[in-house]
Amino acid sequence: MIESTTPTVAVSTLLDEIADVGVDRARGGYSRPVYSTAELELREWFVGAARGRDLDVETDRNGILWAWWNPGNLPLRDAVVTGSHLDSVPGGGAFDGPLGVAAALAAVETLQARGVRPTRPMALAVFPEEEGSRYGLACLGSQLMTGAVTPERAAKLVDADGTSFADLAARHGLDPRHLGRDDERLAQLGCFVELHVEQGRGLIDHGAPIAIGSSILGHGRWRLSFSGQGNHAGTTLMSDRRDPMVAAAATVLDIRRSGRAIEGARATVGKLDPVPGGSNVIASRVDLWLDVRHDDDAVVAALVTDIAAGAREHAAAEGCSMTLTEASMSPRVDFDPLLRGTLSDVLPDAPILATGAGHDAGVLKEEIPTAMLFVRNPTGISHSPDEYVEDPDADAGGHALATVLADLITRPVLIPKTF
Amino acid sequence: MIESTTPTVAVSTLLDEIADVGVDRARGGYSRPVYSTAELELREWFVGAARGRDLDVETDRNGILWAWWNPGNLPLRDAVVTGSHLDSVPGGGAFDGPLGVAAALAAVETLQARGVRPTRPMALAVFPEEEGSRYGLACLGSQLMTGAVTPERAAKLVDADGTSFADLAARHGLDPRHLGRDDERLAQLGCFVELHVEQGRGLIDHGAPIAIGSSILGHGRWRLSFSGQGNHAGTTLMSDRRDPMVAAAATVLDIRRSGRAIEGARATVGKLDPVPGGSNVIASRVDLWLDVRHDDDAVVAALVTDIAAGAREHAAAEGCSMTLTEASMSPRVDFDPLLRGTLSDVLPDAPILATGAGHDAGVLKEEIPTAMLFVRNPTGISHSPDEYVEDPDADAGGHALATVLADLITRPVLIPKTF
Repeated sequence: MIESTTPTVAVSTLLDEIADVGVDRARGGYSRPVYSTAELELREWFVGAARGRDLDVETDRNGILWAWWNPGNLPLRDAVVTGSHLDSVPGGGAFDGPLGVAAALAAVETLQARGVRPTRPMALAVFPEEEGSRYGLACLGSQLMTGAVTPERAAKLVDADGTSFADLAARHGLDPRHLGRDDERLAQLGCFVELHVEQGRGLIDHGAPIAIGSSILGHGRWRLSFSGQGNHAGTTLMSDRRDPMVAAAATVLDIRRSGRAIEGARATVGKLDPVPGGSNVIASRVDLWLDVRHDDDAVVAALVTDIAAGAREHAAAEGCSMTLTEASMSPRVDFDPLLRGTLSDVLPDAPILATGAGHDAGVLKEEIPTAMLFVRNPTGISHSPDEYVEDPDADAGGHALATVLADLITRPVLIPKTF
Repeated sequence: MIESTTPTVAVSTLLDEIADVGVDRARGGYSRPVYSTAELELREWFVGAARGRDLDVETDRNGILWAWWNPGNLPLRDAVVTGSHLDSVPGGGAFDGPLGVAAALAAVETLQARGVRPTRPMALAVFPEEEGSRYGLACLGSQLMTGAVTPERAAKLVDADGTSFADLAARHGLDPRHLGRDDERLAQLGCFVELHVEQGRGLIDHGAPIAIGSSILGHGRWRLSFSGQGNHAGTTLMSDRRDPMVAAAATVLDIRRSGRAIEGARATVGKLDPVPGGSNVIASRVDLWLDVRHDDDAVVAALVTDIAAGAREHAAAEGCSMTLTEASMSPRVDFDPLLRGTLSDVLPDAPILATGAGHDAGVLKEEIPTAMLFVRNPTGISHSPDEYVEDPDADAGGHALATVLADLITRPVLIPKTF
């Protein structure tokens, strides 16, 4: 590895450039849904920053941004890819997504300054709708590219304002007929390393700034829809009620108990919508979203079955009914062991951590070897304004990523694709 | 009373004219929030229908519509007022509000056709934001006119889209500086009789089409705001959580238990908002709206105190906090006994019913004698698409109202104002 004293941009400096974009004054933190004004401004920022580093930027037919570094004009195959996403959950933190993008930009600048000559092409990627905050389907960009989600299903997704993904994509220059699996692009890729803020307390416990990812928990989302009898809150006797809010509330408490009872499980209700939602109206329906994760996919399935059985009982006791709909289920992902091994070789002090969060690296794992780096989050809190990364840790992340990439882009392809 | 065979318009025919306005395909029923396109269309319909019956229509400085019938050009005092509202709850029924307005129009046509010569002026009134669906404050129009709500408080109310009531009022031709108590108008009014669909099962049990109202339950709305720690649903261990959704759910179950434990009480949670509201995010805050009603205001207060104490305990057990805010409290209203007596004299078969629903007639009771007529609702359901009135009952309502008005507008003023 060629060391250099040439100063390169700090990851924290890059993040400072976008600190004002998509600030959410009501919720705190940032709201940067895919294709919102805020996310489009971040994309523009990325394109400018990549071009400023002599990268060739293109948007593919699924809306994924690619910034290529290929100074030797090598054939486009076995490319080493890094990157992350720029969209956020509502009221999210500053680092979830943008940290990986900023670290990728800083890393490529570091490699350039060091005079590294890649023997494989390298690309920085920005994936849209990683959070699924707008269309309810996480990692939508990478799932379209790999065909894990069909273009027909994606086109029909509708956001809270009633805008379909097909219409939104068309409005932003994509042709809805050309969404979907991109064999040509996939054939160009060799491996993917995503750097991400840690979303738990693992690195706090280890007292280390950087970890290497081992796996992603199995993870699903379900909608439990309780139907009862809408009615007037003032005139309907308590004994005459069929109130789905009561059944939903009892189910929320069950979900907490079930999640606690199983080692390593996570079970959450973060979204609950009463219909019609007037304070003086007994709801006619309550939709509740259940998020369940566990290391073992079978445990996830069993937990949801139990919760649904309990929910049906609560509904029946209230004269209501309950229907369960699976919105998504992502099986447990183990990152590529050979690629993980190379990361451990160049970052020998980094602990190995599993994560409960889904990532585009988990989706791409079905196609190419993928791995992840995590950067310490001193609050252990994520998807919240309280998510945080200290500047030195952000810069250590950029440095670690540069170290990993310097190794990968100059070595022969050792790691076979999984397809 | 002068009887006539002249055919006059049926109440059901008038309601048919507006059956397409504000249909809510998502929720079912109707959504006609105040100053929405739908409610404005209903106002236009009312203005046209009133002018077609030779009434003089004006909008007062609080946005209340008045249609005067004063063929003798009598001095404007001791006026007999009838009417109701045109706004609805989200996904409400076709009758809550419009039935009283349509019955008023049909009644005045009947009186005209019968050749009744009023010895007191008569007016039809349409009150805005009776439901409080848009600004959270029921009977906002009548409360502004009587000064029960200050114009300063009303101006600052903000709807779900962030539009203040002051801005909305200005957009619709009102001067926000001239909102508030209207002594001149109040001095013109003698009494108010509001006809309304029954919102419970009282008339089903009595087997009668029309009832006379006795009283309105004491009624309040409170917001319970639970604050915890927003976090990632996948990476946060169950043991590390401070989830306000859990505390809110436990409180919903308490509210049901408390409401059931007290004879004649109603306690409802129809609105519950998790913030930020992502399915993969542990909420940082959950706002829950509590609606409590009882014949005895002291019981309402005691019930809310109990519920709040329990909610604070649930919050503390979850490492959360809870704050309670009173949004409104309307004490029990007894309608004017003398006016009720005159209604019973001309409608001797009508049973006497209390109601759990708030009405503009309850607000105006502080200023002038008021009374109510209820029309049978064969489902007993209201604030729901299932609310219903059979055509013959709607027409019986129009007929009963005409009978009452014919008596009131031709008799000397017997009933003193309460102020």
